Amino acid sequence: MSRKTKGINAERELVHKLWAFGWSACRIAGSGSSHYPSPDVIAGKDCRSLAIECKTTKKTKYLTKEEVNNLVSFAKIFGAEPWIGIRFREGWFFLKPKDLKDTGKGLAVSKELAKQKGLGLKKLLG
Amino acid sequence: MSRKTKGINAERELVHKLWAFGWSACRIAGSGSSHYPSPDVIAGKDCRSLAIECKTTKKTKYLTKEEVNNLVSFAKIFGAEPWIGIRFREGWFFLKPKDLKDTGKGLAVSKELAKQKGLGLKKLLG
Repeated sequence: MSRKTKGINAERELVHKLWAFGWSACRIAGSGSSHYPSPDVIAGKDCRSLAIECKTTKKTKYLTKEEVNNLVSFAKIFGAEPWIGIRFREGWFFLKPKDLKDTGKGLAVSKELAKQKGLGLKKLLG
Repeated sequence: MSRKTKGINAERELVHKLWAFGWSACRIAGSGSSHYPSPDVIAGKDCRSLAIECKTTKKTKYLTKEEVNNLVSFAKIFGAEPWIGIRFREGWFFLKPKDLKDTGKGLAVSKELAKQKGLGLKKLLG
């Protein structure tokens, strides 16, 4: 399975889980290629909305500062909360942009960091 | 140009206009095919968010009750306002679902109805 297909499958899985929790959610078209900042998934319920950048990894995921800044600036204008959703084999963890580890060149999330700082989906929504 | 391409171009044009007005906006992936209800475009600024079903036509556009009901139910859960955005040659008009004309079988928007009941983008956002 290509990395792109894996990414789309993870986004679809997350959208499905969000609906199962009673939220509305959808995948954003061309979120990596549009020249406007945009998240991978957007979800909303009542007065709360979430802009989520989705990643999958087995161990550690690296993000560029630019993609995280784009997420934050989209969320700020939209009035949404910016979250990084990382899917490990164990499941999903959701981190705030400020909780990613700055490696100088970019930002990283290890499984250990995700377990320490991240929220599970139920806690994120609850 | 295929009908699908025309539709996507109209959605992109609307996203572009929304950003130009200082809103954040994005196109939804697979909005016509997902088994969850979803709009074509979602836009947000501060505490307000818009779920928009986009259409293009020269004269009169027909919508099914199902697609409008899907838009309304998505918007209700999300906490967004449901709008039908119709692009005529003259530009965009935005109508509330209740302002579409019930033809019995479905719902219709003529250019006359759009001009009478619809809002321009500036007014919609202002």
